[in-house]
Amino acid sequence: MNLSTFAQRFARHSGITQLMDDMAGAMAGEQDMLMLGGGNPAHIAEVQALFRQRMQDILDQPGEFARVVGDYDPPQGNARFLTALADLLNREYGWELTAQNVALTTGSQSAFFLLFNMFAGDCADGHRKILLPMAPEYIGYGDAGLADDIFIAQRPAIEKLPEHTFKYHVDFDRLQVDETTGAICVSRPTNPTGNVLTDAEVARLVDISSARGIPLLIDNAYGMPFPNIIFTEAELVWNENIILSMSLSKLGLPATRTGIVVARADIITALSNINGILTLAPESVGPALAYDLVRSGRITEVSRSLIRPYYQHKAQRAIALLHAELAGTDYFIHKAEGAIFLWLWFPGLPISSLELYRRLKQRGVLVIPGEYFFPGLDHDPWPHKQECIRITYSMADEVVRDGVKIIAEEVKAL
Amino acid sequence: MNLSTFAQRFARHSGITQLMDDMAGAMAGEQDMLMLGGGNPAHIAEVQALFRQRMQDILDQPGEFARVVGDYDPPQGNARFLTALADLLNREYGWELTAQNVALTTGSQSAFFLLFNMFAGDCADGHRKILLPMAPEYIGYGDAGLADDIFIAQRPAIEKLPEHTFKYHVDFDRLQVDETTGAICVSRPTNPTGNVLTDAEVARLVDISSARGIPLLIDNAYGMPFPNIIFTEAELVWNENIILSMSLSKLGLPATRTGIVVARADIITALSNINGILTLAPESVGPALAYDLVRSGRITEVSRSLIRPYYQHKAQRAIALLHAELAGTDYFIHKAEGAIFLWLWFPGLPISSLELYRRLKQRGVLVIPGEYFFPGLDHDPWPHKQECIRITYSMADEVVRDGVKIIAEEVKAL
Repeated sequence: MNLSTFAQRFARHSGITQLMDDMAGAMAGEQDMLMLGGGNPAHIAEVQALFRQRMQDILDQPGEFARVVGDYDPPQGNARFLTALADLLNREYGWELTAQNVALTTGSQSAFFLLFNMFAGDCADGHRKILLPMAPEYIGYGDAGLADDIFIAQRPAIEKLPEHTFKYHVDFDRLQVDETTGAICVSRPTNPTGNVLTDAEVARLVDISSARGIPLLIDNAYGMPFPNIIFTEAELVWNENIILSMSLSKLGLPATRTGIVVARADIITALSNINGILTLAPESVGPALAYDLVRSGRITEVSRSLIRPYYQHKAQRAIALLHAELAGTDYFIHKAEGAIFLWLWFPGLPISSLELYRRLKQRGVLVIPGEYFFPGLDHDPWPHKQECIRITYSMADEVVRDGVKIIAEEVKAL
Repeated sequence: MNLSTFAQRFARHSGITQLMDDMAGAMAGEQDMLMLGGGNPAHIAEVQALFRQRMQDILDQPGEFARVVGDYDPPQGNARFLTALADLLNREYGWELTAQNVALTTGSQSAFFLLFNMFAGDCADGHRKILLPMAPEYIGYGDAGLADDIFIAQRPAIEKLPEHTFKYHVDFDRLQVDETTGAICVSRPTNPTGNVLTDAEVARLVDISSARGIPLLIDNAYGMPFPNIIFTEAELVWNENIILSMSLSKLGLPATRTGIVVARADIITALSNINGILTLAPESVGPALAYDLVRSGRITEVSRSLIRPYYQHKAQRAIALLHAELAGTDYFIHKAEGAIFLWLWFPGLPISSLELYRRLKQRGVLVIPGEYFFPGLDHDPWPHKQECIRITYSMADEVVRDGVKIIAEEVKAL
């Protein structure tokens, strides 16, 4: 098969492809796997009941279901939903958005593919890059460049905390922004670490990007106001220089593939035009299911009172299990400030995290090797990259419990 | 805003963007428009009732709705749906497909974006192109190249038929295939013309592409076995050199964004890996809604007995209206062999089709100017390109009637 340069680049079996294959295999019950690897959100009964009821209401209104599945939305996304979301954000945060500041995409992954390639890669004035102020960062970013080498990242500062806990910080002293930087990007809460950048860190990144006139991309898929899987105090900021991404996935709707981008109107227009060419229109079921909750603002309360406590409780339980099982070994757990993952660091691990992943997979436990989460640090020989794994704590309690036990056994055997 | 080369290319206001904007504006009732421009399929009551009932069944099974909206499918698409579809095609056409020959994408547009750029553009051995054996071809192809200039097309042969009717044919004498040709692509039925390539034409294209070892892409979004909006006898062919694209859109599910690609397993693997990086996973609601109909094979009967007659009847009515209203002018209607459009040719039209589009829009009728449908013939000064318009006949009868009347008035005034 004679494939183009584009296809050669993207058709290779990437980290994200392995993740999705593993997860799908486990979900389909191919093997009896303890799935601590994926990013599938939990089915929270009370939340799913709301979406089920909303779908029932759509079915019960004459013609409404046919409109939802049967009419293309515009490339920018469903107009009613865009307005309701802009209004919600204005009420919650005092911003002054209109529907022209919001666009929908086929999930967050697709939003970032578009945004990265809009602001980095081949440009009229040369090659520009996306600066990740610190790695570890999201596994799905790494392969997204249409051009080679579009990420540059730097090591974080590591703050060791009591009780086998640590937290990454942006090492501002080493942060280099210059005319080759097309945009700055952070996920907050961070996938994979559960880190939430402090308000002070975000404020400095806002200043740095504004000073250079480049966008600051904030991947808010786990953040406020929904699904609000944040366990610390944090402020959500937006201004015309910030591109904020959100998602319906972690509310429990990942398979509807609804990503949301909030940005300056000219950026939204460009993004929508590009998306229109690539995919014609975003899908409509996700926005239809979330519409009432967004319009009424109830989505904020649902996130605060149902979704956040659900995950926080599960995180605390998983952390307690890890401390119990790993006692006596050299390990650190990243401070769980949000998202649906725990990030484990085993200093001096004698095998690579990829080898640890393979051994755990053989024993029926799926995790994600940490080395996939360092986009932009590919050539940095930092041993830390090989010493970490990401585990998901959103699955059933017994899956987490049995999985953690086996992880501890393997690590102790080393 | 400092945009990359990629963004500059795609963010321009393309033909497809204008189409989607116009359509969305009209659907949202912004203006009181007679919408003969879009490609939105009709809501056929009996068909929509099937999907509504299927969604009700999903809601009524405990946990099933949460699985449909709440669990990511693998990058290749929902495994049960892929198997059911492979089995259906094997039963209908005697092929020997497995689930490994099928992938889902975020709609057909997205499938073609991926496929065109997999087989054309920058390649290890230079620049390759997609050959469109004849234009007019689908408006959405034209902008899809990541590289410049990835299409090459040629003028069709025109066969004039009785009663102001004509049909395009591939002009095989002029067809040039060489080492710069990455793939050959046709839509069948063709959007915008309603042409259905004859079996003999397809057989020749199969031979030509096989001889060169390049894929033949057949865009079967309106074809068999569903939605089967084909009014002539035609055979559906597939072999390991053919990449067949299908869609759930024209069944009445465009807003679920479900495209289907049937191809050799190694092409499916490459396509799925690429799609995984760009969008993580396809959405799941479309395949869930169509699953039972596909598995039982009932979708074939629904298409034959409900969908095809519905459109054929509407096409015949629209054609009769056009003949009545345009009597006395110099016009031709492309033979309506399939799809949901009519293609009108006004030989010697004194203004461009774009200007005609503008005048009609001013009078409250949306059509699509024909000149957008000649990807790969951009530099060909052929006057025919400016003499055609595409109209949709799938909207309510009174919309078609009033729209056709105004079109005839404008054309007569010229």
